[in-house]
Amino acid sequence: MATTDDDRRPKYQRIADTLREAIQSGHYGPGDRLPGENDLMTTYGVARMTARQALSVLRDEGVAEARKGAGVFVRDFRPIRRRGIERLARDQWGTGRSIWSADIENRALEVDRITVTEEKAPARINAVLGLTADETTCVRRRRFVLDGKPVLLATSYLPMPLVTGSAVTREDTGPGGTYARLAELGYEPAHFREEIRSRMPSRDEAEQLSMSAGTPVILICRTAFTDTGHPVELNEMTLDAASYVLEYDFDATPKTTLAND
Amino acid sequence: MATTDDDRRPKYQRIADTLREAIQSGHYGPGDRLPGENDLMTTYGVARMTARQALSVLRDEGVAEARKGAGVFVRDFRPIRRRGIERLARDQWGTGRSIWSADIENRALEVDRITVTEEKAPARINAVLGLTADETTCVRRRRFVLDGKPVLLATSYLPMPLVTGSAVTREDTGPGGTYARLAELGYEPAHFREEIRSRMPSRDEAEQLSMSAGTPVILICRTAFTDTGHPVELNEMTLDAASYVLEYDFDATPKTTLAND
Repeated sequence: MATTDDDRRPKYQRIADTLREAIQSGHYGPGDRLPGENDLMTTYGVARMTARQALSVLRDEGVAEARKGAGVFVRDFRPIRRRGIERLARDQWGTGRSIWSADIENRALEVDRITVTEEKAPARINAVLGLTADETTCVRRRRFVLDGKPVLLATSYLPMPLVTGSAVTREDTGPGGTYARLAELGYEPAHFREEIRSRMPSRDEAEQLSMSAGTPVILICRTAFTDTGHPVELNEMTLDAASYVLEYDFDATPKTTLAND
Repeated sequence: MATTDDDRRPKYQRIADTLREAIQSGHYGPGDRLPGENDLMTTYGVARMTARQALSVLRDEGVAEARKGAGVFVRDFRPIRRRGIERLARDQWGTGRSIWSADIENRALEVDRITVTEEKAPARINAVLGLTADETTCVRRRRFVLDGKPVLLATSYLPMPLVTGSAVTREDTGPGGTYARLAELGYEPAHFREEIRSRMPSRDEAEQLSMSAGTPVILICRTAFTDTGHPVELNEMTLDAASYVLEYDFDATPKTTLAND
């Protein structure tokens, strides 16, 4: 806080910087309580509004979170680990530990708010599934909840002609789920493409996922293809980024060698 | 805007909701200019501050972006496509189009701000690389820039005992880069683990990546292992989420069948 550049910054920013550094250095660990407004007023000789602004900077960044009546705490990142590719278990090739610890590895989440409808899909979905604007899809919507906290919204689109009359169109798809039914119908998924991006949530997404301020969502768009390259399902997932770490394990290829440097 | 619930929301929120819906319905497309403060004041009969707040809600959500002197525009998402796994080219298995269009597929980015140092790594890095707090690492930092816009920060850590005296410790690592040198040293990367999360950027990250408001970063932590499972490099990447879509293509496995439903 001694440089000329920093002296020009508003006081609440400089207090936020100091607290952030104390978090990054480990002085305050995950789950620790940060100094409250009264503490900051005394320590820095500032007004309550300034102290409040400093704490709100850290909340907006997602570094800290307020707990009602208890204060502001360093956010703990203990995410669900979602493995995109199950085939290569990490323990096959070594003991290297993961950088982000995780309590839960692909643990079964509770599913709620399941709906199954027949709908014309948005144009972006039709383009991937190779459907015309007149064709319909079977749309399966559901929400995944862990310990009472919603963490994931998923909406699957399947071309209606492929699944008409099958259990895919019912809430309970039966043993093995949608993919087992697709296999019985002659459309077994053989390849997957997962596309990932991140942005801030819409108001509706933030509500459905009970999200804290300063937290983005991760979007995964997963397309399932048959072995002949025919797209049979598109699943749009919206994840609370504070709840997830995604993992992809794979083998090196000649091209990989060049990609990293 | 007719329900009781909505009527209780502040006016600027309701204006933002209306604009957001118009964007989602396609009335305003990517890159389109949104109504300005004066337009909103006339249309909704509100004060300038209310109009300004409505637009700032959309900017904070990352839905819109301000261009100096020109107004507020619907954000266009034309990201760089980063393929995690090169082996399975999409055209091997079908014609299904991607949901997010992308101008650039693994196009070579310009690299700037390269530094190579010998440092004791943070504890989280040492834990993955299996190093003690006394051992040092070769730390390669660089920034990737596309058309003048920085898009990616990368910091690689390599155990110093593995790379001492080699070209890995120089700015120019030579043909094939770090991985080719590791191979020559007997530590050829054979497996990779990529872990992905997302959060809001720190002030320093936002500055280094010239990020817009309301935009998160994607973090990729990539660990390279030899065929005996020995971790030889850890690369921490920070991506401007407005600039990237990540793609992973892989084959189905029996477990995959159960993971999705």
